[in-house]
Amino acid sequence: MRCEVVAIGTELLLGQIVDSNSSWIGEQLALAGIDSLFQTKVGDNFERMEACIRQALERSDAVICCGGLGPTQDDITRDVLARIMGVELVRDEVIVATIKAMFDEREREMSDNNRRQADIPAGASVIAQMPGTAPGMACPVGDKVIYAVPGVPYEMKEMMLGTILPDLQHRRGAAAVIRSRVLKTWGLSESGLAEMLDDRLQELDRIGNPTLAFQASGIEGIKVRVTAKTDDEASAIAIMDAEESLVRGIVGDHLFAVDDATMESVVLDLVRARGWRLAAHESLTGGVMASRMTAVDPDLKVFQGAIVAGEVTGQGDGEMRAVAAAAKAQNRFGCDLGIAAVSPLHDEDVPSGTVFLGIVAENAEHATTVALPGDHRRLRAYAVISLLDFARKTLARG
Amino acid sequence: MRCEVVAIGTELLLGQIVDSNSSWIGEQLALAGIDSLFQTKVGDNFERMEACIRQALERSDAVICCGGLGPTQDDITRDVLARIMGVELVRDEVIVATIKAMFDEREREMSDNNRRQADIPAGASVIAQMPGTAPGMACPVGDKVIYAVPGVPYEMKEMMLGTILPDLQHRRGAAAVIRSRVLKTWGLSESGLAEMLDDRLQELDRIGNPTLAFQASGIEGIKVRVTAKTDDEASAIAIMDAEESLVRGIVGDHLFAVDDATMESVVLDLVRARGWRLAAHESLTGGVMASRMTAVDPDLKVFQGAIVAGEVTGQGDGEMRAVAAAAKAQNRFGCDLGIAAVSPLHDEDVPSGTVFLGIVAENAEHATTVALPGDHRRLRAYAVISLLDFARKTLARG
Repeated sequence: MRCEVVAIGTELLLGQIVDSNSSWIGEQLALAGIDSLFQTKVGDNFERMEACIRQALERSDAVICCGGLGPTQDDITRDVLARIMGVELVRDEVIVATIKAMFDEREREMSDNNRRQADIPAGASVIAQMPGTAPGMACPVGDKVIYAVPGVPYEMKEMMLGTILPDLQHRRGAAAVIRSRVLKTWGLSESGLAEMLDDRLQELDRIGNPTLAFQASGIEGIKVRVTAKTDDEASAIAIMDAEESLVRGIVGDHLFAVDDATMESVVLDLVRARGWRLAAHESLTGGVMASRMTAVDPDLKVFQGAIVAGEVTGQGDGEMRAVAAAAKAQNRFGCDLGIAAVSPLHDEDVPSGTVFLGIVAENAEHATTVALPGDHRRLRAYAVISLLDFARKTLARG
Repeated sequence: MRCEVVAIGTELLLGQIVDSNSSWIGEQLALAGIDSLFQTKVGDNFERMEACIRQALERSDAVICCGGLGPTQDDITRDVLARIMGVELVRDEVIVATIKAMFDEREREMSDNNRRQADIPAGASVIAQMPGTAPGMACPVGDKVIYAVPGVPYEMKEMMLGTILPDLQHRRGAAAVIRSRVLKTWGLSESGLAEMLDDRLQELDRIGNPTLAFQASGIEGIKVRVTAKTDDEASAIAIMDAEESLVRGIVGDHLFAVDDATMESVVLDLVRARGWRLAAHESLTGGVMASRMTAVDPDLKVFQGAIVAGEVTGQGDGEMRAVAAAAKAQNRFGCDLGIAAVSPLHDEDVPSGTVFLGIVAENAEHATTVALPGDHRRLRAYAVISLLDFARKTLARG
């Protein structure tokens, strides 16, 4: 099963927008075990779009076109797909009514251009999820298929997860129901994780269901996708539950989150569950911790704040300084939990990339030392995740 | 003149890395007035790489291949280019010596794999800039050319700016020397800027040299690239200087930076020039200001720090609260300059997207109100840039 991605929009070629959609789709396809051998960006031009999509369809079993479904004259994905299917566009009055209802709700007039968004190639089906005014669609071409989704990331993602990935998995396999779950791990290499799970992988090779796939994802760690194929929803969930607890038993607390949960959301949930609040001292991480936490908790309900400042001076080794910095954040914001990552002092004889992590939880102090990769920018990002992971483990144990 | 980009690497298709290189190259080509109609991502596979590069070369005058020049067995861009050129790979002993010197400097052993990086297709020329162990190259094919650059962003950028862009401009025009300069503006729409510069653009249409090109770049504002074509370096610089001061005269202090300077670096320079230091209060921006400033000033030499916390409570309207927050940062860090952006209170009757900016510079208070677009994430990013722009203008005037 091969599926290509064609990202549509002149703004992508001009570098006004970085095409992160294709990367996200590529990751989802890889986790679902679907090969994606090419990804193409093309501008809003009929002939070039047609050529790209036709070529993709020739090389692959399915094509996902992302973008060009908006209301402006530039948005011609619908027209190109009708041409490739050899059919006319037909206005779908149910979609017109849905779009109109969205405009009514915002007390705005619906323009004729917005009506164009309801034009669907004859024989195509509309994707059920429609979070914005642009409907997605699935266009059959022989025994292959072209999906069209909007370029707005959250609209695209809802359609991918709700319709396109299940449909692709269904096309590939014979099972009636295919469901998958992503288990996120931190602190293991891809090869280390594969080794830990080796016996189970060999067993699953014989059983055939569920399947496991790995994906290294930088500061998001290594992901394991569990995919179950069965006849009904309930047994799919039962298979995934069983596999998740089996994997948890093997990888232990390296498994930090499932599906949409992130390191930030997991730590915030653990702190919230205790009725606690937390704050950070950011001499090394320089605001990166706060910007990540406030993106999840913008009203500062659990994450109370951060001090971005030079290092807390004082006696002691790196870990003692990290704890002192954590205590400073805890005191300043009157929180139950203070966290901090600090660099070595200039005269400290430790390898480059050494970072000290400190946590103060009520009156208990915790500290550890980690070795992190990369230049200043990457080091900061890894320091933030490592500190959150340390907080997660400390909270889970305590 | 058309130039395509082929990004090479299975990790790009799998979404492990977002292909920001192609976006950056696309932006540079657009600013240089070179059309780029397609961008393709392909995995580390000989046949598929060959097919992609051949197709790109057929459709365009030049192709930039990014990635696959490393030392591992996966890195086969050199081999594919030799096949397309119909020549053998020849080991360049000068490059071998250069790579060896890099290893010696880091006191590490050079492996045989690293020697492979010095294999160059016969007839190709090595790009002068070589910041890493992977040499870039220019491979003539008939009257067209394929450039190969490493996937490491800073290595790629140095080669693009130092060799490839000048070479492409040279290939396009007859002039011996082609130089360009990017003028960055903030606070204008692309159409507004074009209107302001309309008379000058018409004049330049007649004169033909220099040329101006526009590029909308999100939170980096609208860029204007001035390109001068002459017989020698000195007169190219004279033409660009004259055009820059002409454009400055027209757009005034909307022009905030030139070439590599950014809003952050410009504000830090202005503060440093006064012998001042600054700090921020981040109730709305939640650490995004600090993470941007500390990326440029990691040792906190000018940017002293930030308080990420809930809003400073107190009397008064939005602008008064913004000034109070700025004063709080100024006091806490003992700085000359305090800056802050705050949101409206829940009962404040202002349109969605309203943000109040406050600055305290020594004893003077400055405040303004801006209307910003987008969801929470975009609003924060725009609030940071708007506040820095306000600080820049305040410092430039004061």
